[in-house]
Amino acid sequence: MKTYLECIPCIISQGIKTAKRLNVSEEIQEEMVKETLDYLKDKNYGKTPPELAKPVYKIINKYMGTDDPFKELKDFYNDEMMKIEDDLRNIIEKNSDLKTAIKLAITGNIIDFGAKHSFDKKVVLDRINEIESNKLIVDTSDELFDKLKESKTLLYLGDNCGEIIFDKVFIEYLKKEFPHLEITFGVRGSPIINDATEEDAKKVGLDKMVKIISNGDSAPGTVIEDTSDEFKEIFYSSDLIIAKGQGNYETLSTIDRENVFLLFMAKCDVVADELNVPIMSLVCQKR
Amino acid sequence: MKTYLECIPCIISQGIKTAKRLNVSEEIQEEMVKETLDYLKDKNYGKTPPELAKPVYKIINKYMGTDDPFKELKDFYNDEMMKIEDDLRNIIEKNSDLKTAIKLAITGNIIDFGAKHSFDKKVVLDRINEIESNKLIVDTSDELFDKLKESKTLLYLGDNCGEIIFDKVFIEYLKKEFPHLEITFGVRGSPIINDATEEDAKKVGLDKMVKIISNGDSAPGTVIEDTSDEFKEIFYSSDLIIAKGQGNYETLSTIDRENVFLLFMAKCDVVADELNVPIMSLVCQKR
Repeated sequence: MKTYLECIPCIISQGIKTAKRLNVSEEIQEEMVKETLDYLKDKNYGKTPPELAKPVYKIINKYMGTDDPFKELKDFYNDEMMKIEDDLRNIIEKNSDLKTAIKLAITGNIIDFGAKHSFDKKVVLDRINEIESNKLIVDTSDELFDKLKESKTLLYLGDNCGEIIFDKVFIEYLKKEFPHLEITFGVRGSPIINDATEEDAKKVGLDKMVKIISNGDSAPGTVIEDTSDEFKEIFYSSDLIIAKGQGNYETLSTIDRENVFLLFMAKCDVVADELNVPIMSLVCQKR
Repeated sequence: MKTYLECIPCIISQGIKTAKRLNVSEEIQEEMVKETLDYLKDKNYGKTPPELAKPVYKIINKYMGTDDPFKELKDFYNDEMMKIEDDLRNIIEKNSDLKTAIKLAITGNIIDFGAKHSFDKKVVLDRINEIESNKLIVDTSDELFDKLKESKTLLYLGDNCGEIIFDKVFIEYLKKEFPHLEITFGVRGSPIINDATEEDAKKVGLDKMVKIISNGDSAPGTVIEDTSDEFKEIFYSSDLIIAKGQGNYETLSTIDRENVFLLFMAKCDVVADELNVPIMSLVCQKR
């Protein structure tokens, strides 16, 4: 997806919200905003929003004096969602169908500090409780089911901390239903917003179930030309890709390979409008 | 009020929304946004938001190829609100108290294409129908009543088109209740967003009731040092000032004179937070 003009003020706002959360002085915040404006004023907006946002988060980090301004929030949401891991498992076991498992995995995508920036735990739990009445507004799950049956290798691209507990439970279901599948879990190469890294995946125990691969990049999405050779190799050789999150939609919606399924919540007007769906819709889209 | 950092992305968004409404090509929109970023990247944010936004609207106008991109919307809301002028009059006559008249005048402030940018007519009519149950969240109306009784001259600063019909009906009430008052109605010196100019005030018949004075400036508020000498003279010599709208709040909340009453709807998070009131609150604040 190209960067829409509405993404520009949104990217600027993300930096301001981050700075406010960390209680940085107003003077430093103003300098940070001005450097962001200076950076954005002559960039190529033909790129995707995560490509354009990556250097902005470098600017934010510089002024925040940290490489990982969301560390505390990431740990909080991983810890909190691990507390309800069994509840998530029970929802899938109770229904035991792919569509419920997909909806649950997408629901975890609500934990996002980029596009939406803040959701308290109650909102997340409410969303989980509504899972049976919520619909996939874009629904290619039947086709995903067929591909899961016929594929040998699946690359599952994670998105955010907290959300990866939902992914873990979904992957358990996939391993049980499609035992022939060799699954690899892809993560960001270094911290960006609340996106999951290798450390986070290990923390929640995903490494005990599947192979973990870092993409070697820190964009809040998958900018394939910036990823490592090892990642590119597995990205193009896997039979099937499930990519979680809006950032992966933004960077992979026009990718040059087949069998990519984008599972996410449409959390901003720009993405909802592009897909012609209501905001906060659950989306399971084949690219 | 100083410019908060959150005002920066909001000002940029206002330009984008204006361009989209006028169906300007994406290339021109992008150039406009980039020039806006370039302008905002090294300005003094100690100024008020309307001071910072005024040159941005000059940039917008340049790319839109017009001095008055809101002309059609201004005429539409003036015409539509003139159709319900008698209904507004009836609400005041039915209750015949200052507080209802103030609430009605403030309700007209919902017609705004800066901070909020879009309200359809139905939202405006719904708000009018709720007038009796809605409260002034900041309420210095008793003090305003006392000042109206003891003052000889009132400068009433208008804000937006459409809203000026509400002001007209309110001013009729003030003339009836406080017949000794000499009232002057202040307007912007030239078109900016959907703010009312002398032409608009005449169009709705305000010139038949009170003296109209242009402030000689085009900021979407009252930046006193940029106004004409004639305006400054009446601004500082009037016994009492009623200033309508959020832009007048932003520019006059720390003004160096007494007896200024700011009547507006708190339409954005920044202003609502500064006043510690819920968003869309009706505010009647003595500076």
